[in-house]
Amino acid sequence: MIAATLDGRGGLRVAEHARPVPASGEALIRVLAAGICSTDLELRKGYMGFAGIPGHEFVGVVVDATVPTDLLGARVVGEINAGCAACSYCREGLERHCPKRSVLGILNRSGALAEYVTLPVRNLHRVPADVTTDRALFTEPVAAAFEVLEQVRVQGGRVLVLGDGKLGQLVARVLDLAGAEVTVIGRHARKLAPLRADGFATLVAGRDAPPPAHSFRLVIEATGSPDGLEQALRFVQPRGTIVLKSTCAGARPMNLAPVVVDEVTVVGSRCGPFAPALEALARGRLRPEDTIDARFPLAEVERAFEVAESPGIRKVLLEVSA
Amino acid sequence: MIAATLDGRGGLRVAEHARPVPASGEALIRVLAAGICSTDLELRKGYMGFAGIPGHEFVGVVVDATVPTDLLGARVVGEINAGCAACSYCREGLERHCPKRSVLGILNRSGALAEYVTLPVRNLHRVPADVTTDRALFTEPVAAAFEVLEQVRVQGGRVLVLGDGKLGQLVARVLDLAGAEVTVIGRHARKLAPLRADGFATLVAGRDAPPPAHSFRLVIEATGSPDGLEQALRFVQPRGTIVLKSTCAGARPMNLAPVVVDEVTVVGSRCGPFAPALEALARGRLRPEDTIDARFPLAEVERAFEVAESPGIRKVLLEVSA
Repeated sequence: MIAATLDGRGGLRVAEHARPVPASGEALIRVLAAGICSTDLELRKGYMGFAGIPGHEFVGVVVDATVPTDLLGARVVGEINAGCAACSYCREGLERHCPKRSVLGILNRSGALAEYVTLPVRNLHRVPADVTTDRALFTEPVAAAFEVLEQVRVQGGRVLVLGDGKLGQLVARVLDLAGAEVTVIGRHARKLAPLRADGFATLVAGRDAPPPAHSFRLVIEATGSPDGLEQALRFVQPRGTIVLKSTCAGARPMNLAPVVVDEVTVVGSRCGPFAPALEALARGRLRPEDTIDARFPLAEVERAFEVAESPGIRKVLLEVSA
Repeated sequence: MIAATLDGRGGLRVAEHARPVPASGEALIRVLAAGICSTDLELRKGYMGFAGIPGHEFVGVVVDATVPTDLLGARVVGEINAGCAACSYCREGLERHCPKRSVLGILNRSGALAEYVTLPVRNLHRVPADVTTDRALFTEPVAAAFEVLEQVRVQGGRVLVLGDGKLGQLVARVLDLAGAEVTVIGRHARKLAPLRADGFATLVAGRDAPPPAHSFRLVIEATGSPDGLEQALRFVQPRGTIVLKSTCAGARPMNLAPVVVDEVTVVGSRCGPFAPALEALARGRLRPEDTIDARFPLAEVERAFEVAESPGIRKVLLEVSA
């Protein structure tokens, strides 16, 4: 099969790989489509020291499994953390924090920018018939957005989202579903336009006047930038909460005294639950497929990454098989 | 009167100042004794850009007031944040987060390393007769330790305290009172000895084997060092909590990805409630006066700062008047 391959030194190319063999408890999945996430762009820059096949957003069809499953032939999406199934985290349903976990296309597990991928059967979720493959492709990032609701109480108040990228957009919409009054600050009027059209308060950084300092009880940092926390600290109220969503390569000098002086709570937030994400997608409460700005065949993954890195571009999709 | 004076460029000297005049609602307090806190050492290095009279730990006697008060002649301690009394924070009893606040010896308000100091009468608490001035001097830092209990649930579990300084010691003891099983990692066997004698698990960094990585659900960072958060991230469990207590001058390159990946909650923690602190001191449940390692008259404040900055020294007290 062919697959996108990172060499761990910034290089990306399409290469021939052996078709993966599902281990005990795993399924073999033929990939229909895969998405390029900001984390993939960071991986290429050196985040996590990853080399191999990237990709953790996918929709596929189960073609084989080493355990009995009613998912054979079904269209599925997959949770990306594969735990040991034995530790206290796995037993609490928090495989995503298992210390021995592998993570699809990120840590010790080949990813989905490939014709075939393997995952434990217990990680897979059937895609409802009325959810298109384009829409289902967003299950993982929508789940990451729903994770915010698992971690902090939103209570219908005013919330600031920093970042108009893929994740920031989804977080804004999920918070809106939860009843929050959402303001989004981004860098690109074009990216913000659909949010503005749907009634969100939007501000273009550097063009529009920023909100007053320290005026939000809850700030979601989804800038994808190492200075995201500093930006968030400018807007959060004393005793307020910042949810930190960006994982970035590289370190940045940072003065944490404002966190202490203002007694701010900073909550790291990563992967989330697939079930509420799929439900919201099935009900049509989110239409993230509107943010697909470009499509490429897998063989053109290098070009797809280039486009994904361009300013103002939201989701780039790879069409892998029909 | 004489007072310690920071020139904002690292200089510290004793100088003559006019005796302060209490403003509306304020009391004039004759200072009996004052403590040197790590924050004072940081202020001298440039933290907060402070110039003037430092000092926020004191015990004094009320000698005048611009409003009627039964505290005239009483021995008092004082909450250090003076709010506007009108904003939403002040109305909720959170003067310490009032955006217009002054802070004794830290922000827009002359401090207590002086013969006289002024504070709003509502900031003052009478010292119970059976609490010595030496012990009462610790009310402010003990309150800062109690603040941790206001912010996180301790629930009697295992807790790691990083730092064997003045605040780390108090936090360890307050957590112990709350039923936690406390381990303290410090740099100085001498500072840790009293904790060890009282049954705390103590470890000397660089000498003893550290605890396993990611083995504590709750870590209190009281190192006073800009790398304190990184140290705490080594020991906190995924989905665990770090309480950040250190306010330091200067910024340090920091990679926040572990906060996101492990979904750690970081809670900034500063000043706390005086009432439970005074109650614990009155009941003899804490005997922080045991950590007074040196005493100087106010006129020798330069020498006192020198000693306070020496490795292994805990509290340095200034005797101001009898």
